[in-house]
Amino acid sequence: MNVVFHVSSADLGDWRHAIRNVRNLLDDETVETDTVTLLANGDAALLFLDGSPVRDRLDSLFEAGVRCCACRNSLDGRGFDAERLADGVEVVPSGVGELVTRQAAGDAYLKVP
Amino acid sequence: MNVVFHVSSADLGDWRHAIRNVRNLLDDETVETDTVTLLANGDAALLFLDGSPVRDRLDSLFEAGVRCCACRNSLDGRGFDAERLADGVEVVPSGVGELVTRQAAGDAYLKVP
Amino acid sequence: MNVVFHVSSADLGDWRHAIRNVRNLLDDETVETDTVTLLANGDAALLFLDGSPVRDRLDSLFEAGVRCCACRNSLDGRGFDAERLADGVEVVPSGVGELVTRQAAGDAYLKVP
Repeated sequence: MNVVFHVSSADLGDWRHAIRNVRNLLDDETVETDTVTLLANGDAALLFLDGSPVRDRLDSLFEAGVRCCACRNSLDGRGFDAERLADGVEVVPSGVGELVTRQAAGDAYLKVP
Repeated sequence: MNVVFHVSSADLGDWRHAIRNVRNLLDDETVETDTVTLLANGDAALLFLDGSPVRDRLDSLFEAGVRCCACRNSLDGRGFDAERLADGVEVVPSGVGELVTRQAAGDAYLKVP
Repeated sequence: MNVVFHVSSADLGDWRHAIRNVRNLLDDETVETDTVTLLANGDAALLFLDGSPVRDRLDSLFEAGVRCCACRNSLDGRGFDAERLADGVEVVPSGVGELVTRQAAGDAYLKVP
């Protein structure tokens, strides 16, 4: 089962909760997962920029094979270029488009928060 | 692919974000969508009333073929009659019921926020 | 159709909204549901403890056959033992794992809020 986590809040507590959620899923031996994606849109996309206060937590996600995706529309609308994303973070044309594509492919969807 | 957006917050910033999300999906040429629905329940249903501060933004959604649905339970519980909804907004018996029906029909689901 | 409601907020207003959502679905005669689950993770898991301010509202859910599940990771991380959960509430290894398992089994997913 592939899984996509959707985060739209830029609140740091919400982000820590989101990252903990991803880790809890990876650590849950009763559930078999294939690709796990953490997608951020809205203000949340800014937490994927280099220099983000959650930057160090992203590395452990990358090491676990988690795909991190930022919404280009959200970055554009806030005046940030995708080149400023932290290494390893992918950019997608629109966060909602990616979420629809992933669900069309059968991924489970989790909103956090 | 049909898509249903679920909004339950009456915060104006959240609503603008929700409407931008719908537009971003329609504008994303990498994703093919059929019917797109924006469903509001809880306090969010009040933003579909005539006189709503997002009233002018709804017209562009209608022009793009987006279906807008308000939860009757939420309106009833807050003392508003469905007749006070903005022109073009549909009423459904329960927002959650509609969301379940849409997912049973294969729609992708997006919570915003 | 089976349905899983996901609540991650510990805000009392959010919880009352979540419980009302579950009741509205059960009362909606236009939608046929089989098993309905209310799953709480993050701070929301604490509202399933015995002594919770929504304790009395849970009984009506149990009477209606609603399954209530709390995330063990969330309880552990906040220093609470699963034995302190209100009677009838089940504990699952991880809330996100349970949500993925339920969606893999075809459940509809609703985030509230």
